[in-house]
Amino acid sequence: MSTDGAVPIATVPPIPQLLAIEAIGTERYRGVSPAGWPGGRVFGGLVAGQALRASCATVGGGMQPHSLHAYFLRLGRPELPLDHTVTRVRDGRSFATRAVEVAQAGEVIFTMLASFQRPEPGEEYQVARATDASLPSDDHGDVLPHLAALSDLEVRDLGPTAPEPDGTFRSTRRMWLRVRGPLPNDPALHACIVVFLSDMGIVTAARPPRTPLAWDTVMAASLDHNVWFHRPVRADEWLLSDLHSLTVSGARGLARGVMHDEHGRLVVSLTQEALVRPTDGPARHVWGGRPEV
Amino acid sequence: MSTDGAVPIATVPPIPQLLAIEAIGTERYRGVSPAGWPGGRVFGGLVAGQALRASCATVGGGMQPHSLHAYFLRLGRPELPLDHTVTRVRDGRSFATRAVEVAQAGEVIFTMLASFQRPEPGEEYQVARATDASLPSDDHGDVLPHLAALSDLEVRDLGPTAPEPDGTFRSTRRMWLRVRGPLPNDPALHACIVVFLSDMGIVTAARPPRTPLAWDTVMAASLDHNVWFHRPVRADEWLLSDLHSLTVSGARGLARGVMHDEHGRLVVSLTQEALVRPTDGPARHVWGGRPEV
Repeated sequence: MSTDGAVPIATVPPIPQLLAIEAIGTERYRGVSPAGWPGGRVFGGLVAGQALRASCATVGGGMQPHSLHAYFLRLGRPELPLDHTVTRVRDGRSFATRAVEVAQAGEVIFTMLASFQRPEPGEEYQVARATDASLPSDDHGDVLPHLAALSDLEVRDLGPTAPEPDGTFRSTRRMWLRVRGPLPNDPALHACIVVFLSDMGIVTAARPPRTPLAWDTVMAASLDHNVWFHRPVRADEWLLSDLHSLTVSGARGLARGVMHDEHGRLVVSLTQEALVRPTDGPARHVWGGRPEV
Repeated sequence: MSTDGAVPIATVPPIPQLLAIEAIGTERYRGVSPAGWPGGRVFGGLVAGQALRASCATVGGGMQPHSLHAYFLRLGRPELPLDHTVTRVRDGRSFATRAVEVAQAGEVIFTMLASFQRPEPGEEYQVARATDASLPSDDHGDVLPHLAALSDLEVRDLGPTAPEPDGTFRSTRRMWLRVRGPLPNDPALHACIVVFLSDMGIVTAARPPRTPLAWDTVMAASLDHNVWFHRPVRADEWLLSDLHSLTVSGARGLARGVMHDEHGRLVVSLTQEALVRPTDGPARHVWGGRPEV
């Protein structure tokens, strides 16, 4: 994970403010990317979180987001605004569907489908949180360059599990995350912040943690991003993001994960495919949005 | 799983023929749904497989599909054609992105994003196929009503694994699948057929196999569908689809799965969220496409 340059890391606004968007037309919204982001990039989680916020703004009637599926198409440029255009794909009685395109200077950099549901009751079932991943009482390391910039983010990184006998890993990354609160009781805001958080560390989780091909000879970038909300979630309470690599082949790796809260409730699941392209040159870790590939 | 009516099950055309589409305009394609499908429905895997076929028709240069993300929006009507409209979202050097909408009588029933990659080399890593899921030497049961209609599909159903000590299931459904071949050496055709197959049995896998709430009091329907192609795959060779339920809550259940081939290569992964709504009335199992919800 390279910060890709000597740009000093400045503190950026609080995360809820990073995700704020303003209406600039009919179902059109504008957001910005902070200048102080590590590497001078636009963070993919920022784009996805803003895009969900834009789609939430067009859905009423007490519906809440339950899933989103997005592709990162082009590298974002932090000096340009992020223009979100929402299309109302469908408004049903129990579900609504939205498409969002994010453009910079008229060029689409991100496309997303999202679905919303009016909350309804049903059965309960879930797989349990890993028993060996309790919340540490103090901070355990920090390998995310984002952290220096995000003053309201708390991370306790547990790292990967030990390799299994066959050389695979049950978890390639485990992190407890929360945003310093309290935040307002707005379920859509919490969902959008969780989307922002869900793009952290997931590219690294797409590959096994100890791999013969070192990270400094790989060009890495998020290709897609997929989040499901299974139960109400608060971003200002601790969440364990437990990620694993399913496979790497053809210069692509797939990371899957779940988030449990501190009470053991499975609140979110996520999947991201990442470009992990071997290079002979120096590392190019791209924070959301693929380079010219 | 109800077949939802007394419609007799007639044999339908071979699967490759079901996925055939004809060009009816610029980036517009038309497919049909067979009259003999169980329950008189349009099968979700048919719509998704045709939509991928339509998007493949607009992508050249040796690129192959590596992922798709779709939402089922409305119940399809088998008496109407399926009109696919493809949008070229992006054409890059290494990747291309397409959006597809499928409409019937002008009403969108399905929307999908798909991504294509020019094959490239990279590292190799994968989790292994379950050791207790070998291909049986003969057919082991059949709980898919599709089977009676699809004469070129072979399924060997292993059922779920035994419950773990905590009551969850490592696998909620394990099926070996293949289409009787040999099929032509067209990678896109194989990918589209695998998408067709990947929607089989996955709604049932979204819930634990032994659940107090019986299937005959649940309205079930696919909400989304997500497929990643990790390595070249052939639909006329045996594939083990190994699915598990991650969670059920809020009348929605999430199934995740992988497909390994007979040589143990992890070729495909998939995720589907399904509506699993408790009802007091009789079962309504909807084969792809949600009812008026």
